[in-house]
Amino acid sequence: MDAIRRAKLISTYRDGLLNDTLPFWTEHCVDREHGGFMMSLDRDGTVIDTDKGVWQQGRFAWLLGELYNNVDQRPDWLELAKHGAKFIDDHCFDPSDGRMWFHVTRDGKPIRKRRYAFTESFAAIAYGELAKATGESHYAEKAKRTFRRFIDHNLNPQDTAPKFTDTRPLRGLGFPMITIVTAQELRESINLPDANEWIDRSIEDIRRFHLKDDIQCVMETVGVDGARIDHFDGRTLNPGHAIEGAWFIMMEGKIRGDQELIRTGCKMLDWMWEHGWDREHGGMLYFVDVNGLPVQEYWHDMKFWWPQNETIIATLLAYELTGDPKYAKWHAMIHDWTYEHFPDPEHGEWFGYLHRDGSVSSPLKGNLWKGPFHMPRMQLVCWQLLTETL
Amino acid sequence: MDAIRRAKLISTYRDGLLNDTLPFWTEHCVDREHGGFMMSLDRDGTVIDTDKGVWQQGRFAWLLGELYNNVDQRPDWLELAKHGAKFIDDHCFDPSDGRMWFHVTRDGKPIRKRRYAFTESFAAIAYGELAKATGESHYAEKAKRTFRRFIDHNLNPQDTAPKFTDTRPLRGLGFPMITIVTAQELRESINLPDANEWIDRSIEDIRRFHLKDDIQCVMETVGVDGARIDHFDGRTLNPGHAIEGAWFIMMEGKIRGDQELIRTGCKMLDWMWEHGWDREHGGMLYFVDVNGLPVQEYWHDMKFWWPQNETIIATLLAYELTGDPKYAKWHAMIHDWTYEHFPDPEHGEWFGYLHRDGSVSSPLKGNLWKGPFHMPRMQLVCWQLLTETL
Repeated sequence: MDAIRRAKLISTYRDGLLNDTLPFWTEHCVDREHGGFMMSLDRDGTVIDTDKGVWQQGRFAWLLGELYNNVDQRPDWLELAKHGAKFIDDHCFDPSDGRMWFHVTRDGKPIRKRRYAFTESFAAIAYGELAKATGESHYAEKAKRTFRRFIDHNLNPQDTAPKFTDTRPLRGLGFPMITIVTAQELRESINLPDANEWIDRSIEDIRRFHLKDDIQCVMETVGVDGARIDHFDGRTLNPGHAIEGAWFIMMEGKIRGDQELIRTGCKMLDWMWEHGWDREHGGMLYFVDVNGLPVQEYWHDMKFWWPQNETIIATLLAYELTGDPKYAKWHAMIHDWTYEHFPDPEHGEWFGYLHRDGSVSSPLKGNLWKGPFHMPRMQLVCWQLLTETL
Repeated sequence: MDAIRRAKLISTYRDGLLNDTLPFWTEHCVDREHGGFMMSLDRDGTVIDTDKGVWQQGRFAWLLGELYNNVDQRPDWLELAKHGAKFIDDHCFDPSDGRMWFHVTRDGKPIRKRRYAFTESFAAIAYGELAKATGESHYAEKAKRTFRRFIDHNLNPQDTAPKFTDTRPLRGLGFPMITIVTAQELRESINLPDANEWIDRSIEDIRRFHLKDDIQCVMETVGVDGARIDHFDGRTLNPGHAIEGAWFIMMEGKIRGDQELIRTGCKMLDWMWEHGWDREHGGMLYFVDVNGLPVQEYWHDMKFWWPQNETIIATLLAYELTGDPKYAKWHAMIHDWTYEHFPDPEHGEWFGYLHRDGSVSSPLKGNLWKGPFHMPRMQLVCWQLLTETL
């Protein structure tokens, strides 16, 4: 990667974040009447559903706090981060059990709670950034309490009707992965006391149960003892998700100076690039079967924005950490394909949902799942990585 | 529609059913070891997941019984229908609450129950055909009891954690629609005493809550009082589903000689053809927004097999009932597009999941949702309709 390419990439990520992604959301999603953010935006930023996804309330508040703490202490970013946290405080916890809602109305009435508790992880990191930005201890307390609820509910769900019987208990990659990144964030923002223990434990779970050296693969879903399950669910890989986990582990290796962790993360990336990269059209596929069989999920071969974002980060980080030119090549492949297909040349920001061939399936800019998170996080992390090396 | 086209269509539907669809399934899906049917088939019929979807156990048993009772009293069809019903009897009811499972292992251990109770409707019609075929009263009793459970659970769910809070209660088209066809089938097979009442009540619910004359549209999901809901869920139309409901109502009009019912069904077809027909690529889209806004479901613009099947039936039935050449033209459009893209020229049967442009997304022949039901039902109903008119 030469200096010209490096400089060009820095400006792509930095300017994209500050001049395109952030203004798109701050101009369109802020609800000054009821608080919080309305994230269901049409291509041009028009709000087309006033309901609020609670993942997105926490994620955007986190992003704004992260930028305030690490990029520039802009009062408007801090004000907006607090605006998001206030809506969460006021409306997003169920007083009957302390768990968080997943989906609420514009004025904060509950619509849906999920069986799992990822909402809590996003609220926790938002509170953490606000604690760091303001020095106010109530934010730190909320961050710790909400992280604890995320952990407790996922390890030991209470008062939740399970989706499946106990005939074939499964274990997913999502919980240990999100535990790693949430603990990393809270270590950095509030110096969470047991962050390292949760990170170690989660990496150990991923290594022990999900990494399969014999077939060179990160399994998304396995039996509770790590056994491979020869049914649709057990065979279905989510390469972009595993690659997201790969860079969380590489980043931990970078922070600790632990080469073994970096090797583990690179191995996960190597394996899942082979499974996920679409040799016919380019880009990362959403789901693939470990044995090349058909997948049951309908959108298996679509190109979503976030698996591309995670792969752009992982390949760049692997290159910065190892200097292996293979990763520079992969980074160029995924970066170029993604920037050719996802950005909206007319209204800014990115499309989220493309067909396999890269044509637009839906012009939605936001919904319950897509919001200002994966894409700006990629822009920020890649900008920071490239700047460090300068 | 001239005599040559008519004769050609009869042979397409009849021969497709008897010489392609049925042999594909009977050769590949029958489990002689554990009973029932394994429906997760790869393109060439290889079983790629031994788990059993319970919808499919009832649906295939129904199809085989329907063919035995209405086409040819072939002992192998009756034997297979009984084989399916026995697996349902032995493994598919939860003794703790009498409800049915949705998904079980090959040997009948439960994996998942759904919040709603459509499994029961498919088991009920299978038992009904077996009652008619064998004259054995225990099948008729099971048919009545299982229909009753379908109704009771859907009207008054018990011991089921709801997916949503009661902030914005909704009403779906699925329950009244499936009630109509299930009651029609059970009226024909076991002379279900209250079939007409359930049909009348369901048609009334559809007219009152889901048909919107002012915007010429069948709403898939409305408020409990029929109000239009201006959020993703409330705006999302499922044209193939509404058109399936249209032909159930037209068929009721045909059976009763009720022109008003025929007009209602044709109106539903007219409206939803306008929403669902893909003017760019042909075929019926899966989901569309009533206001032309983006849809949140990822597979909104894919072409699934079953909306095409239902539209082929509805357009043919509308033509046979009204003689309006518009319907002959629509039938030709949907029939020709479907037969150009869905049949698998190499291994027989049909693909189920195409991209918007008609290219194959997944070569799966069967899974928890696709099995020998919509497509052979279309072949049977269209063959019967065309033969009646001869």
